[in-house]
Amino acid sequence: MISNYIVIVAGGSGKRMEATVPKQFLLLNGRPILMHTCERFYQYDNTLTFVIVLPSEHIETWNALCKEYAFSIPHKTIDGGSERFYSVKNALDHIQAYQNTQEALVAIHDGVRPLVSLETIDKAFLAAKEKGNAIPVIAVIDSVRKVEDTGSSIVDRTQLRLIQTPQVFKLSLITKAYQQHFSENFTDDASVLETMGETIVLTEGNAENIKITRPIDLVIAESLLKNRDAI
Amino acid sequence: MISNYIVIVAGGSGKRMEATVPKQFLLLNGRPILMHTCERFYQYDNTLTFVIVLPSEHIETWNALCKEYAFSIPHKTIDGGSERFYSVKNALDHIQAYQNTQEALVAIHDGVRPLVSLETIDKAFLAAKEKGNAIPVIAVIDSVRKVEDTGSSIVDRTQLRLIQTPQVFKLSLITKAYQQHFSENFTDDASVLETMGETIVLTEGNAENIKITRPIDLVIAESLLKNRDAI
Repeated sequence: MISNYIVIVAGGSGKRMEATVPKQFLLLNGRPILMHTCERFYQYDNTLTFVIVLPSEHIETWNALCKEYAFSIPHKTIDGGSERFYSVKNALDHIQAYQNTQEALVAIHDGVRPLVSLETIDKAFLAAKEKGNAIPVIAVIDSVRKVEDTGSSIVDRTQLRLIQTPQVFKLSLITKAYQQHFSENFTDDASVLETMGETIVLTEGNAENIKITRPIDLVIAESLLKNRDAI
Repeated sequence: MISNYIVIVAGGSGKRMEATVPKQFLLLNGRPILMHTCERFYQYDNTLTFVIVLPSEHIETWNALCKEYAFSIPHKTIDGGSERFYSVKNALDHIQAYQNTQEALVAIHDGVRPLVSLETIDKAFLAAKEKGNAIPVIAVIDSVRKVEDTGSSIVDRTQLRLIQTPQVFKLSLITKAYQQHFSENFTDDASVLETMGETIVLTEGNAENIKITRPIDLVIAESLLKNRDAI
């Protein structure tokens, strides 16, 4: 049986949270956000191989937290890079080093998206298995304007999609894509693959799958976790 | 002293909420959403003249709720139209009927945005007073793709803004704009004014100012209300 991978990128410094603790370590219902995120994927498939990418200066803290909170999911911790691109590249290099089959799938997920649904994960894995890649997206609810030098104009929001993670890829494809030189245009993993001419496959995400970046997001996430049954 | 106006549009049928109660009447911390929304504007400026637009079949329910919850803000209730455009037009026609000065400002707000901040309201009123119109917007946090017939492509999210309400206008300007025939391109009040060649003025909105349209939004709104001090 092929083992699939989950790479969880937790490289944020927490500047936007106005917190001294990196945001991935902030407590959500009394437990670090990053643990919630890992546990969600473990719940989806406990045969996944976990790779967590952290800034090197936070690895010691993470190990201490793992002890304190009895975090028991087996995982490998990898040093992050100066940009998200290099963090993912480091993780893929690590996986390549001991992976023979190229048919494995690798999911790449933001460490601060603990509310991804099992359905979102499943849809992305299934589509990637069939088509090589998949990224979850959701519709835009609010009206949208585009700001330009000369003013602003209405954009047709029905054509827009907000991008989430996990973004799931065939290991061979994404590893090859990450051989490219870094570009400022690489805003997510799909955009790295897209530069090689691949068509990106969109799957259905879930509205609760928010990225915790602002203090308000932590408040929202706590309430969503507590009310999971009501959603 | 010129009296300014607040038109609160509460025309939704609640289909997206999977509820039989129209969403503007759903309870938020034990009180109908629409009352929270009105109370926020009353807190900002208790000299505003309140006009609430409701589908005619809901007006009786609203009046009963006002008694039940001892809702005491003086307001005029107006019948909504088949489209949001006609609802706002009805409200403006009503205001025109007893308003002599054209220098008054009118704010138009979604009934299901109870979490607008006083600062968001104030910035929009101040800018509209000076420049004739103003709409609050916020930045987009997630990456964005545009879906087209042939696939999808990355959009530069730094150029995009999510549009909120209240949208505030000089009464004379917006009344004239609403003399136009209805168009499918009128996605908000600013777009109605823009069709006449006016430049739309953007002000800063607040992230908590969400539109309650899905069950998850009600959960989020409850938690934001309870944690207002933490935001």
